[in-house]
Amino acid sequence: MSYLPTARTSVHRLKKRAAYDKATVHAILDEGYICHIGFVVDAQPYVIPTLYGRDNDCLYFHGAMASRMLRTLASEVDVCVSVTLVDGLVLARSAFHHSLNYRSVVVLGKARFVSDAEEKMHALQLITDHAVPRRWAEVRGPNELELKQTSVLAMSLQEVSAKIRTGPPVDDDEDYSLPIWAGVLPLETHLGGAISDDRVLAQAPQPDLSRFTRFVVAKG
Amino acid sequence: MSYLPTARTSVHRLKKRAAYDKATVHAILDEGYICHIGFVVDAQPYVIPTLYGRDNDCLYFHGAMASRMLRTLASEVDVCVSVTLVDGLVLARSAFHHSLNYRSVVVLGKARFVSDAEEKMHALQLITDHAVPRRWAEVRGPNELELKQTSVLAMSLQEVSAKIRTGPPVDDDEDYSLPIWAGVLPLETHLGGAISDDRVLAQAPQPDLSRFTRFVVAKG
Repeated sequence: MSYLPTARTSVHRLKKRAAYDKATVHAILDEGYICHIGFVVDAQPYVIPTLYGRDNDCLYFHGAMASRMLRTLASEVDVCVSVTLVDGLVLARSAFHHSLNYRSVVVLGKARFVSDAEEKMHALQLITDHAVPRRWAEVRGPNELELKQTSVLAMSLQEVSAKIRTGPPVDDDEDYSLPIWAGVLPLETHLGGAISDDRVLAQAPQPDLSRFTRFVVAKG
Repeated sequence: MSYLPTARTSVHRLKKRAAYDKATVHAILDEGYICHIGFVVDAQPYVIPTLYGRDNDCLYFHGAMASRMLRTLASEVDVCVSVTLVDGLVLARSAFHHSLNYRSVVVLGKARFVSDAEEKMHALQLITDHAVPRRWAEVRGPNELELKQTSVLAMSLQEVSAKIRTGPPVDDDEDYSLPIWAGVLPLETHLGGAISDDRVLAQAPQPDLSRFTRFVVAKG
């Protein structure tokens, strides 16, 4: 199953880096947890980082009802959502061939304001559990006032492309004779030990950090 | 020294998280190395991750001359550049008060095509050395053909805001009596050991990884 490339999502340069299949796209969206969402107000583009959740072919976002971003996006404007995972720095023998190993997804479309109470609660759970798996079941859920203060937006995954670079640098043939180190410097996000706030009760269970598959978790 | 907040960069919500002073903004831009750049083509916003460099109040970007992004940006359109550093997950006792500790910068303005050969070479060095400090001096510099294939854009830092969240969760008073763990899960980017490509010459010096102050570097 793949997303159909459109004139706007077809990758024209470095085509071999492009992917449109759902498994690849979903894996990147699920490993990431911050997206950068782009929208236009008075001809000026804005790019704002935010959390998200995914339910099959639907992305969910939330934010304060009062925010410019949420008000703008809820008015069914064109948006772009970008999720980027950086896997390593690629050092070549020439400045020109330096690169990054990365996996990225770009989604184009319009956001839809979620007004249905059940879908809104479901989306809030997805967003919470996307950032912190299984957290929803551990915490106090939103009350009426909090729900009123929070907006939820949905965006359908239709115009979607992924771009992936992996592997070593690719240098020009004649440069391989240069005595310059070249290769990959891998990057990983590590989750350090949990820092309890000052008022955690003694009987509160410590958080299970093994829930985070997207991070390397500190031992002990 | 501060950037003057404008109607477009004034942070309206959670004002205490906003910062406009140059030292704060520059520190975030210098610790980051990937930005998400937003621009508009036919009313559709696009958000693309890319590398950058900084020279005082100027950001530089580069890319293939043939890319849509570079062609669009070089035509002096309005752009938005966003740099986001995530420092930790903030787990509260209520779903509503979950948050992130982060430092982010948003820059609004127009990009300028860099046509001057000297400024272009300077910018390419800055971009390379921003991602990998002192790398420019170690590698083969760009030749005429590579320079022709590469476009460089500059963007002045004028309309700029930073936003920062630090510290523990802030829960509602009555929720502190709940036996739910709350606190911060700190995140760090680690740089693993260097993976040489298969054709590195024996006499090529190993890369000095202590150059990376933005990453935790693996020992040994």
